[in-house]
Amino acid sequence: DASAKVIDGKAVAKQIREEISAEVSRMKETIGVTPGLAVILVGDRKDSATYVRNKKKACDNSGINSLEVNLPEDSTEQEVLNFISGFNNDPSVHGILVQLPLPSHMNEQNVLNAISIEKDVDGFHPLNIGRLAMSGREPLFVPCTPKGCIELLHRYDIPIKGKRAVVIGRSNIVGMPAALLLQREDATVSIVHSRTKNPEEITRQADIIISAVGKPNMVRESWIKPGAVIIDVGINPVDDPNSPRGYKLVGDVYYEEACKVASAITPVPGGVGPMTIAMLLQNTLISAKRIHNFQ
Amino acid sequence: DASAKVIDGKAVAKQIREEISAEVSRMKETIGVTPGLAVILVGDRKDSATYVRNKKKACDNSGINSLEVNLPEDSTEQEVLNFISGFNNDPSVHGILVQLPLPSHMNEQNVLNAISIEKDVDGFHPLNIGRLAMSGREPLFVPCTPKGCIELLHRYDIPIKGKRAVVIGRSNIVGMPAALLLQREDATVSIVHSRTKNPEEITRQADIIISAVGKPNMVRESWIKPGAVIIDVGINPVDDPNSPRGYKLVGDVYYEEACKVASAITPVPGGVGPMTIAMLLQNTLISAKRIHNFQ
Ligand SMILES: NC(=O)C1=CN([C@@H]2O[C@H](COP(=O)(O)OP(=O)(O)OC[C@H]3O[C@@H](n4cnc5c(N)ncnc54)[C@H](OP(=O)(O)O)[C@@H]3O)[C@@H](O)[C@H]2O)C=CC1
Ligand SMILES: NC(=O)C1=CN([C@@H]2O[C@H](COP(=O)(O)OP(=O)(O)OC[C@H]3O[C@@H](n4cnc5c(N)ncnc54)[C@H](OP(=O)(O)O)[C@@H]3O)[C@@H](O)[C@H]2O)C=CC1
Repeated sequence: DASAKVIDGKAVAKQIREEISAEVSRMKETIGVTPGLAVILVGDRKDSATYVRNKKKACDNSGINSLEVNLPEDSTEQEVLNFISGFNNDPSVHGILVQLPLPSHMNEQNVLNAISIEKDVDGFHPLNIGRLAMSGREPLFVPCTPKGCIELLHRYDIPIKGKRAVVIGRSNIVGMPAALLLQREDATVSIVHSRTKNPEEITRQADIIISAVGKPNMVRESWIKPGAVIIDVGINPVDDPNSPRGYKLVGDVYYEEACKVASAITPVPGGVGPMTIAMLLQNTLISAKRIHNFQ
Repeated sequence: DASAKVIDGKAVAKQIREEISAEVSRMKETIGVTPGLAVILVGDRKDSATYVRNKKKACDNSGINSLEVNLPEDSTEQEVLNFISGFNNDPSVHGILVQLPLPSHMNEQNVLNAISIEKDVDGFHPLNIGRLAMSGREPLFVPCTPKGCIELLHRYDIPIKGKRAVVIGRSNIVGMPAALLLQREDATVSIVHSRTKNPEEITRQADIIISAVGKPNMVRESWIKPGAVIIDVGINPVDDPNSPRGYKLVGDVYYEEACKVASAITPVPGGVGPMTIAMLLQNTLISAKRIHNFQ
């Protein structure tokens, strides 16, 4: 009796990537410019390497140039800063991304602040976040994951204006910017976090729930107002003896329960995940268009 | 049967101004530096002139130097920018304030963005707002009115952490930064605005209400949970035939009703109003201390 519509992030992301490919081609043909993304990876964390590989593959498939720099774990902050400065000045690079987390001997703020705001395709610069928070201002880039969440709502024609929205989680990269984006679209937003005393009661008031916590199956049926729309950002590994890898990925929301009460829900995997990379490509394209004043 | 404690902003502001005077004296005696605030007023709006006069008087009383520039209504944006640039480079100036609103032929964003972030004592620069929104970042300055609201809560020992807070209004200068500040102190925050469908129902859930709307007596008894704390930022003139001026000032909150159900409430006038100027002096002092590395 699963009544919820499945919000198919994989399919939407595929469509967006096709739209991007077409725009990239048109740009090449019209002005001879190919958008370029530079990715800096420090150290050899396996998960980070996978993310970077996926981003590179997605660039390739969309016709976006990708440059990759792999620095050893024991590089200095200054070495990373030198690469950033080089990319800031390189006209073939329109987006710069430093894969997080950085090794602990580096200051993440220093490194991220060094990225030119015009090429900050992750949208993490405080100047971007400030503009996102302010009415009447426009950020140069919107952070990819929360942008992907809102894009899913748009593509499924889910109204936001005047709706009650609850964002669970308030991280700089997902929860907080997601709340700001919902508010820009005139939702009435509440933010639930680890210090919230009655998260269930508050969440149950929401027409739209965006969850970005990192706790498997935390959001139960009783947290959900019948008919609510759920965007589940969480990607959490849980033991699964039936899987060859020994684990599987689940969201923050208990999917089997939620799909009985919600009107629409993103699956994990295949929901927000694929949207994040699509939005990164989109931000890189937007940046190249802006720098070259191409409409 | 008014049971609410009155949060006496006038008395708290007076105390803070005395603390500031003492710090200003200590700074002068120790390193020979006097904090300085530059105020730019364009045009001859009566209310703006009054605000600027009050700020100047408050500086004088605290031992802070104040410089005032009065430009005619028909000045050019470039003339204002030239003064800002001069103050940016003037080591005797630690805070720069442009009295808003500017004449309509000027671009407010351009003007505000020109103020050096180190001297932006109003805290309106998007870089400051971004840092305010981000966990792990510190703004150089917190906007004066919302800072005054939180300071009142602190001085009255009203706990914020884990409490439900509702901010009514989301302007760049009051509502939005007030919500960010409450969240930084671990309240669970909801923001109510003009597109909110059930403001009464949401507001009634709050342990702490900050209202910054500009609608006289909008918040009625039925909006208030018994025991809630109310910070009323609104300053609204309403007709009053009994007053020699023909009008009086009231808040967004219907005071006579609210003081029966709330546990504490700010009056209007005499609540948040006096705190705003006190916080401006405090920000100017903070700036001078930071620039001269004086603890
Ligand atoms: N789909 C995608 O592309 C992406 C998915 N993710 C996934 O999203 C999830 C969140 O990521 P991220 O934002 O980086 O995580 P963070 O750990 O940075 O933030 C988690 C947030 O959840 C809050 N929180 C923790 N426990 C609770 C609780 N019991 N109830 C309510 N709130 C709680 C925290 O509150 P507090 O601030 O009080 O500590 C914090 O704000 C993870 O599963 C991650 O893997 C992340 C990025 C991209
Ligand atoms: N004490 C002091 O020192 C100061 C006092 N003030 C006073 O505070 C009040 C607010 O000022 P300011 O923030 O500059 O005002 P703005 O007009 O800039 O913002 C008003 C906010 O209230 C919201 N709003 C309007 N109508 C309603 C409604 N019916 N229900 C809920 N929300 C509504 C608006 O929503 P939306 O965004 O959807 O339009 C907007 O966000 C004024 O009375 C002002 O005089 C201001 C500054 C300093």
